[in-house]
Amino acid sequence: MRILGIDPGTGILGFGVIDVAANGKTQLVDGGVIRTPVKEDDAVRLQTIYEELTDIIAATKPEVVSVEKLFFTKNVTTAMTVAQARGVVLLCAKQAGMEIFEYTPNQIKQAITGYGKADKKQMQEMVRLLLGLSEVPKPDDAADAIAAALTHAQNAKLS
Amino acid sequence: MRILGIDPGTGILGFGVIDVAANGKTQLVDGGVIRTPVKEDDAVRLQTIYEELTDIIAATKPEVVSVEKLFFTKNVTTAMTVAQARGVVLLCAKQAGMEIFEYTPNQIKQAITGYGKADKKQMQEMVRLLLGLSEVPKPDDAADAIAAALTHAQNAKLS
Repeated sequence: MRILGIDPGTGILGFGVIDVAANGKTQLVDGGVIRTPVKEDDAVRLQTIYEELTDIIAATKPEVVSVEKLFFTKNVTTAMTVAQARGVVLLCAKQAGMEIFEYTPNQIKQAITGYGKADKKQMQEMVRLLLGLSEVPKPDDAADAIAAALTHAQNAKLS
Repeated sequence: MRILGIDPGTGILGFGVIDVAANGKTQLVDGGVIRTPVKEDDAVRLQTIYEELTDIIAATKPEVVSVEKLFFTKNVTTAMTVAQARGVVLLCAKQAGMEIFEYTPNQIKQAITGYGKADKKQMQEMVRLLLGLSEVPKPDDAADAIAAALTHAQNAKLS
C-alpha cells in the first residue's frame, strides 16, 4: 500500500509518500514541501497547492491519503487559512480517486511515539527510526506529513 | 461588468450573477444554490462544489467574484468546514482567471441597506428593490450571494 501524508498549510504544505509492505515494513518514497509565494493572495497560493499536489499525486500514485486534522489554535485567522488549503487538498485527493483518512495531531503522536504529548524532536527521531533513515527528514513540515502517513500505516495494519 | 457573488458553505453554497451597466444599473443574470449530499464526507462535497461552480463560471463568464468573508461564529467546526469550501471557491475563481474581492457580512449589510446591523428581511427586500425583481430571490443563500455581488457593484462604482 502506498500512502500520501499531508500536513496542510498555505505558506508551506508538507507531504510524504511511503510504501507499506505486506509484512508491515515501511519505506520512504518521497517527501518534501510545497511552498507558496508569501506576497501573493490566498487564491494564487491555493492554485499553487492544487497544481503541485496534483503533480505529486500523478507522479507517485498513492492509493490513500492521510491528512492531519486541524488543530484549533488561538489564532483563528491562521486556522481559517489552513482550512482553505485543506479544502484544496481534499479536492485533489478526491479527484485522484484516493481514499481519505484524517488523524488529529494527538493521534499521530500517539501512533508514532506511543505518547500523545511527545515533542517535535521525539516525533522526528521516531519517524527516522521507523523508516530506517540515516537523518531526520527536513524540513519539519515534511517530517510531520510523513508522520501522518506512518500513522495510517499503523492503523491500517491494526484494523 | 459581470459579477459573481458567492455565499460559501459546504451543505449549501449560494451564488448570484449580476450585470452592472455603465450607468450603474444592475440586473440579475442567474442565481441559485449548489447543494451537496448531507451524508457524504467533506471531500465528496468539495468535489461537487468544484465541479458545479466551474460549470456555472463557464456558463455565465463573470469577470470578477465577490465572496463573503468568513464570519467567526462560536461553532469552530462549522467555520472550518465553510473555510474548506471557501478554499475551493477561490481556486475555481483563480483557475477561471477572475479578479477576487472579499467583503465581510457587515460590509455587505452596510452596502446594501446603509446599515451594518440590518436583519435578513431588510437585506432581502433591498436586494429585490435594487434588482427590480417582483419577488425576493430564493433560497436565502442565493439572496445572500446576490447581495455580495451587489456590494462589489457599489464599491466598484465608488472607486
